[in-house]
Amino acid sequence: MAILERNDAGAVAYLTMNAPERLNALSDEMIAALQETFDTLKTDRSIRVIVLSGAGKAFCAGHDLKQMTAGRQAEDGGRAYFKDLFDRCARMMTTIRGLPQPVVAQVHGIATAAGCQLVASCDMAVAAEGTRFGVNGVNIGLFCSTPMVALSRNIPRKHAFEMLTTGEFIEAGRARELGLVNRVAPIDELGTEAQALANTVAAKLGSAVKIGKEAFYNQIQMPVDAAYAYTGEVMVENMLNRDTEEGIAAFIEKRPPDWSQ
Amino acid sequence: MAILERNDAGAVAYLTMNAPERLNALSDEMIAALQETFDTLKTDRSIRVIVLSGAGKAFCAGHDLKQMTAGRQAEDGGRAYFKDLFDRCARMMTTIRGLPQPVVAQVHGIATAAGCQLVASCDMAVAAEGTRFGVNGVNIGLFCSTPMVALSRNIPRKHAFEMLTTGEFIEAGRARELGLVNRVAPIDELGTEAQALANTVAAKLGSAVKIGKEAFYNQIQMPVDAAYAYTGEVMVENMLNRDTEEGIAAFIEKRPPDWSQ
Amino acid sequence: MAILERNDAGAVAYLTMNAPERLNALSDEMIAALQETFDTLKTDRSIRVIVLSGAGKAFCAGHDLKQMTAGRQAEDGGRAYFKDLFDRCARMMTTIRGLPQPVVAQVHGIATAAGCQLVASCDMAVAAEGTRFGVNGVNIGLFCSTPMVALSRNIPRKHAFEMLTTGEFIEAGRARELGLVNRVAPIDELGTEAQALANTVAAKLGSAVKIGKEAFYNQIQMPVDAAYAYTGEVMVENMLNRDTEEGIAAFIEKRPPDWSQ
Repeated sequence: MAILERNDAGAVAYLTMNAPERLNALSDEMIAALQETFDTLKTDRSIRVIVLSGAGKAFCAGHDLKQMTAGRQAEDGGRAYFKDLFDRCARMMTTIRGLPQPVVAQVHGIATAAGCQLVASCDMAVAAEGTRFGVNGVNIGLFCSTPMVALSRNIPRKHAFEMLTTGEFIEAGRARELGLVNRVAPIDELGTEAQALANTVAAKLGSAVKIGKEAFYNQIQMPVDAAYAYTGEVMVENMLNRDTEEGIAAFIEKRPPDWSQ
Repeated sequence: MAILERNDAGAVAYLTMNAPERLNALSDEMIAALQETFDTLKTDRSIRVIVLSGAGKAFCAGHDLKQMTAGRQAEDGGRAYFKDLFDRCARMMTTIRGLPQPVVAQVHGIATAAGCQLVASCDMAVAAEGTRFGVNGVNIGLFCSTPMVALSRNIPRKHAFEMLTTGEFIEAGRARELGLVNRVAPIDELGTEAQALANTVAAKLGSAVKIGKEAFYNQIQMPVDAAYAYTGEVMVENMLNRDTEEGIAAFIEKRPPDWSQ
Repeated sequence: MAILERNDAGAVAYLTMNAPERLNALSDEMIAALQETFDTLKTDRSIRVIVLSGAGKAFCAGHDLKQMTAGRQAEDGGRAYFKDLFDRCARMMTTIRGLPQPVVAQVHGIATAAGCQLVASCDMAVAAEGTRFGVNGVNIGLFCSTPMVALSRNIPRKHAFEMLTTGEFIEAGRARELGLVNRVAPIDELGTEAQALANTVAAKLGSAVKIGKEAFYNQIQMPVDAAYAYTGEVMVENMLNRDTEEGIAAFIEKRPPDWSQ
């Protein structure tokens, strides 16, 4: 069994982190597998949505602490290895944002530290009731500084600060209230719910979703006037797309669109 | 009947988009009427609050797709027209932010695509129970890239992303939870609720509200230290205003202020 | 009795604003006392968390309006005094952010204008049920322009705008929903709740919390890629801390950490 399994169904790629005995920790191997798979998917035009889940009891428990500890054996005490590790990890997280396809985290059990960051880094998240989210590195003296980059852009800052400094967990319902999660479902309906969300998005015009996702993260970091100048250009290009012309014509004529995709 | 009606009551201007047969679509004419009216109100010192609503079944259903489709007949396939259209639309939306008067959206029925953007672009919003909000352009292949500029500055990003890529609607209560709407009222009390909010703000010292609104949107885009340097200056000018001196004196003396406005 | 009392219990410093007859207004003296105490605490390595509360009926009612009014007697009508006052106040507020220790506001009664800003400026806040929060300067013609810097970085912007322009109050439960407050407790359990939160954080590795807090506010103002480059370095330094090495080793060995702090 691969450490990351991929199963496609229609235009949706289902990725499953598969190291359940380590709670799908983000080991060097897991980060590499995610990076490689995302890089492959980036140019795979047959896939319009990605769903990411974890095998076993949990979604993801963060970095692999045993592997990190082994890294201390190097002459520099691990400095070079740690720097490289956090660089690779951040690159993998931000690759999600740069993918043309929306990525849905399908979360159950726990999502902690870099595992919580992974949820926050996905475009959307569906969680099983009872799932617990935490950025609890502080409990072992390792503040979740990289996870907070993603978390503090998902939820209000005082609530993010509390999670980071107390190490306490929030449950799925609270995570949805705060903005970390989009939908919550009973555990035995989790897969169905994630699939339904994925299929809804996959049924849209892929080229429109692609330019929209890219524009979403670009504009959100701009001042408002620059954001409008930029998205105005995006809208013009979108309007001139032949499939969009068909979509609008179909809407006016009250018929389903006939898209080439 | 004009495409945009204006009725003043005291210091409040009530604007009603009046193209109910087209669900108050933001046609060239509607955008122009809104722009012209906002430009007039900008220097109208008798008006201290603006309430914007829509006649008929809905607040606003977004751009006028038939008119946009007609624009494709140009030699360039509509490129110049679309560019101009999105420029005019963004200018109208950001004019709201630049007005000295707070603008309250009074929303019912549906507010979709650029109609949802219009709600997000107003300073505050009151919605009737059951009102549905969506950025559903993705359903016809036209991602709501310009609406998302306003929407993603009102609500948490994962929820904004979901609305944009699924095209699904949220109801008024959820819109209030997320930050898109301030108050929700039964449909037959909607006008009263919007009026009450408008009158509350109109009763304040106009000059203070004016400098406050301007400072609000300026500071929100600054780093914290720059924001404090800037708003500190604003506070000094506010303190030196004669009406503010009277307001503070009246408060200390436990009497109503006698403002010149 | 000092205008600001400090009582330490273990690694927690409890500060109490003590001008109850003026609802703990932020007079020149109160601002100076807070600034001086924060400056002292900044280098006090025995303290790992700070709790800030107010004696009497309220947490803090904002600026001292009588003192400000007296400032108008100067030849310049108070301009220089007001500028200096808002500079000192903003410096005190941002000093909180710059402290190595997390600061918890323990709030009851009312927190208005600069008093609400003080809550928003703390890293976390615990409020008694029924506590009322407002940025109500607009009621007397003085828009809460400096308080909004902190408030608008805590809660969604439409809700902030409403509070600022209507002067209306929100209660503790709503403040928690919006992100201004972390926890709400019955008034007779308020102290216990704040203490519990403080003790939870004080039990963590102080050096990790310190670098985490600093990184939190630095990264939140950066674009995502810069934030990751920066926090990646922070993580490396954190990993190389001897106490963190012990914390991770203890976790792997399923024993409590033996920290030097």
